[in-house]
Amino acid sequence: MKPKKEYVILPKSNNDKEVTDLGLGSYIPEGSHRIINKDGSFNVVRKGLSYFETFSVYQWLITMSWLKFGTLIFSSYLLINIFFAFLYYIGGESNFEGIEASTEFHKFLNEFFFSTQTFTTVGYGRINPVGIYSNTISSIESLIGLLSLAVATGLLMGRFVKPAAKIIYSENALIAPYKDITGLQFRIANKRADHQMVDVEADLLISHINDGKVKFDKLTLEYDKITFFTTTWTINHPVTEESPLYGKTEKDLKDSNAEFFILIKGFDDTFAQIVHSRSSYKYNEIIWGAKFVSIYAAPEDGKTIIDLEKISSFTKAELPESKILSAEN
Amino acid sequence: MKPKKEYVILPKSNNDKEVTDLGLGSYIPEGSHRIINKDGSFNVVRKGLSYFETFSVYQWLITMSWLKFGTLIFSSYLLINIFFAFLYYIGGESNFEGIEASTEFHKFLNEFFFSTQTFTTVGYGRINPVGIYSNTISSIESLIGLLSLAVATGLLMGRFVKPAAKIIYSENALIAPYKDITGLQFRIANKRADHQMVDVEADLLISHINDGKVKFDKLTLEYDKITFFTTTWTINHPVTEESPLYGKTEKDLKDSNAEFFILIKGFDDTFAQIVHSRSSYKYNEIIWGAKFVSIYAAPEDGKTIIDLEKISSFTKAELPESKILSAEN
Amino acid sequence: MKPKKEYVILPKSNNDKEVTDLGLGSYIPEGSHRIINKDGSFNVVRKGLSYFETFSVYQWLITMSWLKFGTLIFSSYLLINIFFAFLYYIGGESNFEGIEASTEFHKFLNEFFFSTQTFTTVGYGRINPVGIYSNTISSIESLIGLLSLAVATGLLMGRFVKPAAKIIYSENALIAPYKDITGLQFRIANKRADHQMVDVEADLLISHINDGKVKFDKLTLEYDKITFFTTTWTINHPVTEESPLYGKTEKDLKDSNAEFFILIKGFDDTFAQIVHSRSSYKYNEIIWGAKFVSIYAAPEDGKTIIDLEKISSFTKAELPESKILSAEN
Amino acid sequence: MKPKKEYVILPKSNNDKEVTDLGLGSYIPEGSHRIINKDGSFNVVRKGLSYFETFSVYQWLITMSWLKFGTLIFSSYLLINIFFAFLYYIGGESNFEGIEASTEFHKFLNEFFFSTQTFTTVGYGRINPVGIYSNTISSIESLIGLLSLAVATGLLMGRFVKPAAKIIYSENALIAPYKDITGLQFRIANKRADHQMVDVEADLLISHINDGKVKFDKLTLEYDKITFFTTTWTINHPVTEESPLYGKTEKDLKDSNAEFFILIKGFDDTFAQIVHSRSSYKYNEIIWGAKFVSIYAAPEDGKTIIDLEKISSFTKAELPESKILSAEN
Repeated sequence: MKPKKEYVILPKSNNDKEVTDLGLGSYIPEGSHRIINKDGSFNVVRKGLSYFETFSVYQWLITMSWLKFGTLIFSSYLLINIFFAFLYYIGGESNFEGIEASTEFHKFLNEFFFSTQTFTTVGYGRINPVGIYSNTISSIESLIGLLSLAVATGLLMGRFVKPAAKIIYSENALIAPYKDITGLQFRIANKRADHQMVDVEADLLISHINDGKVKFDKLTLEYDKITFFTTTWTINHPVTEESPLYGKTEKDLKDSNAEFFILIKGFDDTFAQIVHSRSSYKYNEIIWGAKFVSIYAAPEDGKTIIDLEKISSFTKAELPESKILSAEN
Repeated sequence: MKPKKEYVILPKSNNDKEVTDLGLGSYIPEGSHRIINKDGSFNVVRKGLSYFETFSVYQWLITMSWLKFGTLIFSSYLLINIFFAFLYYIGGESNFEGIEASTEFHKFLNEFFFSTQTFTTVGYGRINPVGIYSNTISSIESLIGLLSLAVATGLLMGRFVKPAAKIIYSENALIAPYKDITGLQFRIANKRADHQMVDVEADLLISHINDGKVKFDKLTLEYDKITFFTTTWTINHPVTEESPLYGKTEKDLKDSNAEFFILIKGFDDTFAQIVHSRSSYKYNEIIWGAKFVSIYAAPEDGKTIIDLEKISSFTKAELPESKILSAEN
Repeated sequence: MKPKKEYVILPKSNNDKEVTDLGLGSYIPEGSHRIINKDGSFNVVRKGLSYFETFSVYQWLITMSWLKFGTLIFSSYLLINIFFAFLYYIGGESNFEGIEASTEFHKFLNEFFFSTQTFTTVGYGRINPVGIYSNTISSIESLIGLLSLAVATGLLMGRFVKPAAKIIYSENALIAPYKDITGLQFRIANKRADHQMVDVEADLLISHINDGKVKFDKLTLEYDKITFFTTTWTINHPVTEESPLYGKTEKDLKDSNAEFFILIKGFDDTFAQIVHSRSSYKYNEIIWGAKFVSIYAAPEDGKTIIDLEKISSFTKAELPESKILSAEN
Repeated sequence: MKPKKEYVILPKSNNDKEVTDLGLGSYIPEGSHRIINKDGSFNVVRKGLSYFETFSVYQWLITMSWLKFGTLIFSSYLLINIFFAFLYYIGGESNFEGIEASTEFHKFLNEFFFSTQTFTTVGYGRINPVGIYSNTISSIESLIGLLSLAVATGLLMGRFVKPAAKIIYSENALIAPYKDITGLQFRIANKRADHQMVDVEADLLISHINDGKVKFDKLTLEYDKITFFTTTWTINHPVTEESPLYGKTEKDLKDSNAEFFILIKGFDDTFAQIVHSRSSYKYNEIIWGAKFVSIYAAPEDGKTIIDLEKISSFTKAELPESKILSAEN
């Protein structure tokens, strides 16, 4: 039940703060500001590298919303065809067979639609290139069309098969009675009904200010791994004497600007890959003296029923005396 | 040989049942109802989230049968083309060149087939768009056709490359003689002749009611990992004094509504990924006093022959006295 | 240095052989027959399941040679187009525009080429469908063409991105002097110059007959993991007193029909996946009293030079007395 | 804090150097030459296998620059179409309908453009094949076109989804004060702003010449794993009495031709895969008596600001006496 050694940052007498660069920084934001947002993203800004050095086009295209992605596809299609229509228009009408247009705008339109027919390789052929110029450009355009299809296929697959856990976290973490001591508890559930998770592991860390120093500690869990994650999991850190929370009050957590970080990892049945999820609780999201209410409804037809609306529901609960002090004591 | 600590739920005096949320619920269905079905799916119903929050279209398209998938593809193709044919029909005949039709229905048919030629980008061109309206719509349709191809490619690959173990389990688990005690044994084989599995691990858990409480325990295995999984593997839980099964009778397992859960994990040669398989045995699928018969036929040409029809075959076997009691004692 | 417990099959007094189903069977083929072939495949035949239950089309298409795959693609293309040409031919000439043929065979040929133009969606349009029958069939054929493209894309990617280690094994394993005892040694190298492997692990097992029983034992390695696998790795099993080889002679290995199994696993730089490789040495591939010669040539420009032609080269070496006995003693 | 046993190569009395084949060779290049380059590639040359045995076309196409890849695509397109245009040209003009050309060169050009229209399946149809010869060749060309598209799709996806860590390493490693001893320290950061890494592990090895023998040792790290890798990580090897660096001077490292190897592994959020990165420091890239300056700027809006331009910045720092001796002592 001792915290794993490799994570605990012991007080170091003659050591400057650089050595505590363990991936989460050496600064704890105050008040409601946080290091890890509820959605798992990090409040870190990088400077010193140009935008292009850190930017990944692929990543951007994979993670944007479907609406944005669709809009991007359609407007790229429009722009590419306007560009090629312009090239065809420059070449002049004599480069084509089948253009029937009375005005310059209609000619351009004809060439725009010819371009779409070339880019998508539909190639009806009523309008078709006769000169070297138009033939050369259209042979390039149809190749670009095919390559764009290849890229679109890759992007769509990347968007579909983006392995990530969808975990629902209880809104608050609780300081709850546990055996004859207390436990820091929160509850998680798998949001996806059709993706089973197995071999799920949890990591819980705390960042707090201790003797004026930023400290990160790993918190030991009652169970840090479960085999099947079908219903819910109440993750529990028992506040034993070894816990950095031992003897701490609600005010202590506030004064030390505490934030709890969670990393959930597990094997996703559908993706056949390890997926993970991150979240955090700030000190003001901790409820002292409470316990979660059951998430189970009465079973039907021998089936377990869980009601995910209750994932955050708790009731008041008496904490044992003198082990961990309640607020303002 | 002691059960791993993190899985065993010890009786807790002052703790309510929420803390036992270890992913499999706090309810054990009675009789032949079960938590994990033989095919590895879970008997859990989720409420409190809307259908769309938990539903994944991709997952649905990937896991449906090939017949359903084919039907869906063809009917989508039909509907999309009826929709576009309708749009072309609205635009009127003058928007097209090459339509030769005497009746309105034939005109619609002409436009339907023009639509299929556009969507698939085959574009013969006899019928082709001349107006702005029909050209605009057909340029959109051909783009949608290409994107549909990209999506279809992604879905087909997802359907092909769906890494999952295909494990055959013996129909029953046996309480068999093992050394001078007994063992709970079941037998598995790899169904796929062309997918080798290596580094295969097994987890065995039991859910039962103990002193009126739902308990989940991990059962220690004689071997919990094998390097090569080419033939079969008889997974064996020795019923030592540390086992939760120690001293239990057939009636005890029935009264405690016992169910055994299995998780098999291994590295699949072909997918180059970890795959897994789940199953379970309910108390009434346990045979007391039996042992598996050999699955091996006489070797031929120096080759080991296994007969998978015998995977579930067993014969009666005397259990040692006074270690684990037989039924109704 | 003690063998890991979970692999070692201890002699069991009252236990029948089924319990030794640890994935490699309960039969050791004699003479030059082997359980694992040099290329890593297994000499196991499955019966009791129909061919279709164990056969995976995808797996078959992914692993066949490029020549076979190409032949299959082209002959499928031919057959599909003959089939559709036949359907078009049945419909009659009046269903098409643009067929210019004097004989029935030329008509069929015209329809065959129209079919290829439809299947590939090239759709020149000189020959094009005018009737409902031909239009319906060609709209189905072009859809099938697109879906075939999607399938081909999936198969080609599966063939390209088939993560597997390409390991070269020394032809023989050696009983070599090691410190003041002996070691069973063999040498491996990464065949692929452009795929780096890191965190490479090795497993070594032996199957032999002991007191008339088939036994599988894990052999402890001097190093069972290396961080970088850039040059070669001489895998060494020190024959200490705990080794199942301790005190064994060349004749003992022959009499016990010994076969050594190897499983190599590592992280492949290019695939960003774990890959593995299997092989085996039969007792008659063991050289007693030899050591490998250096595989390194003189370094050039500060670069390490390895000569993979020497991977199997060894010289005679004196074995220490009385530790492990040489042949015929 | 003891080095892991499996990596440390102990001095062996009667053992020749082959046994030290632990993947990095048995030769340490002198001066500024190195075993692992700064970009993680290895200075190893393989001989004894033909070029084709070790060469992987796929790997080559996946790793070449985008410029080269684009050039290759376009020139292949050109060459394929010239080849088919030549085949069509051989067949003669009578095999085609719609060729309007006064010179032989124009005829060839017509057939070249017809070829591009066939390969990309755009198939306008003005020029179209009428004879058996041209129809046969164009039906083959359009199939090849489709298969090329399938290959291109696979290659583009392989190029996009190439999971690899982009780690920035500090230019130098430092011998810095640590507690009351010293530590070998270097600093890393994640270059990608949009790829979070979790569960990041580090391995540090040293190659040096010891008593005339090449030795590889694993160096123990203060922390060898961090949960979140959002900002930076200062990797620290404390030079305790167990360290192979204990008591060594700057001159010692030079004389032993020391090189430090680093392997970083972690789970990449976006790829949902383990990625890794390699690098090394040669003895002349070690700064004695220095410590890294803070990389953190003043936080803004509760956000941690890191300035990656400072990743290599250090200041002079006094080393504790008599523990590890500074240069030229």
